[in-house]
Amino acid sequence: MTLTINPLTGIPEIAQGDDLPALLLEAIRRTGWEPEPGDVLVVTHKVVSKAEGAVVELEGEEEPAYRALAKQEAVEIVRRRGDLIIARTKHGFVCANAGVDRSNAVPGTAVLLPHDPDRSAHGIRKAIAAATGVDLAVVVSDTFGRPWRRGLVDVAIGVSGMDAILDLRGTTDANGRELHVTEVAIVDEIAAAADLVMGKATAIPAALLRGLEFTPGEGRARDLVRGPEDDMFL
Amino acid sequence: MTLTINPLTGIPEIAQGDDLPALLLEAIRRTGWEPEPGDVLVVTHKVVSKAEGAVVELEGEEEPAYRALAKQEAVEIVRRRGDLIIARTKHGFVCANAGVDRSNAVPGTAVLLPHDPDRSAHGIRKAIAAATGVDLAVVVSDTFGRPWRRGLVDVAIGVSGMDAILDLRGTTDANGRELHVTEVAIVDEIAAAADLVMGKATAIPAALLRGLEFTPGEGRARDLVRGPEDDMFL
Repeated sequence: MTLTINPLTGIPEIAQGDDLPALLLEAIRRTGWEPEPGDVLVVTHKVVSKAEGAVVELEGEEEPAYRALAKQEAVEIVRRRGDLIIARTKHGFVCANAGVDRSNAVPGTAVLLPHDPDRSAHGIRKAIAAATGVDLAVVVSDTFGRPWRRGLVDVAIGVSGMDAILDLRGTTDANGRELHVTEVAIVDEIAAAADLVMGKATAIPAALLRGLEFTPGEGRARDLVRGPEDDMFL
Repeated sequence: MTLTINPLTGIPEIAQGDDLPALLLEAIRRTGWEPEPGDVLVVTHKVVSKAEGAVVELEGEEEPAYRALAKQEAVEIVRRRGDLIIARTKHGFVCANAGVDRSNAVPGTAVLLPHDPDRSAHGIRKAIAAATGVDLAVVVSDTFGRPWRRGLVDVAIGVSGMDAILDLRGTTDANGRELHVTEVAIVDEIAAAADLVMGKATAIPAALLRGLEFTPGEGRARDLVRGPEDDMFL
């Protein structure tokens, strides 16, 4: 099935209390699309955090204030190099500066991760369902680095309306062999795909995917967090 | 710009010496599309390796033979747990079992990574250009796990016709702040996006992306390899 990904443009700068679901719905309609069952809406966390007020003023000298804030958001520092920390957040995600970010933030401020990104995704989904009667899946994304590979990729930090992981256990490949690859992080692939139409320098904070085959479900991005007992790199 | 991703279906089981570019071109045409400049063709390495003969018979007991082969393909073992090794390959990639895989392989055999996946991508690109006059970008993908996050995602292990990394250094965000996120692993996001239409259990080994904004270039997937001096997790 053909997969189509539309960037959602024209969304204004977001501030605390803005009706983000309404702005996303308007942006979907500007593309000429009306929400349909099976659509997946991807929203970068930056606008979600701003709408929820997860923004902090950096008082005094900006650079040290930013470093202190990142440390404060970290529940565990996994690695440190100079001023950069790779840290586990309260959600369980491991990322640079515990997810605290200043790009596309008002100067003098930093944007935190949403308090509960799965819940944020759920709220957007329910608001759009209430307005349209259509139950989309929603993914909240962020931009993470990775060990061993240069460059950053977008991943999912919040999900509603679908499983975070596509579990192929028990299925077989074209030769009848049981699949070795049993768990696909489908929401991370969705976040990465959406980033291809969003771009970092432009102010496009969302995208809509149509034509994806997935099973609706009540997954959470927290399902992606590998526990320490299951991780060889902690 | 809208991004469209078409799965390329109907590609038969591939064996050494098969004309993979011709089969891919036929599959593109079966979707109703003719290659266009700016298209990106994503091919899973499995069919590339098979066409190149990078397939090994597992002699004797299959399981120990497979483990021995994975060790043989590893230039460095990064982590080990039970029978599973996370290893650096000769290309510099860090992945499970040094990229040796038995899913979608003929029973009793294992498929290695292509000897030089950037060169494989280049060969496919040049053959399609010779047949059609159209210079596509080509990405060869594989399925990798990651530390800290459950589930697997497709990443790029070979590239031709575009840069592997989108370098945003010097560009500014919507507020005029110089971007902190300066390097996007665009080819990894392309591989992940393509996997959304391919699926692991089906025999769809390729996809075509149309509508992606990128700058043609002569990048290589090896550009994605973070050197030990630059990596906090080696």
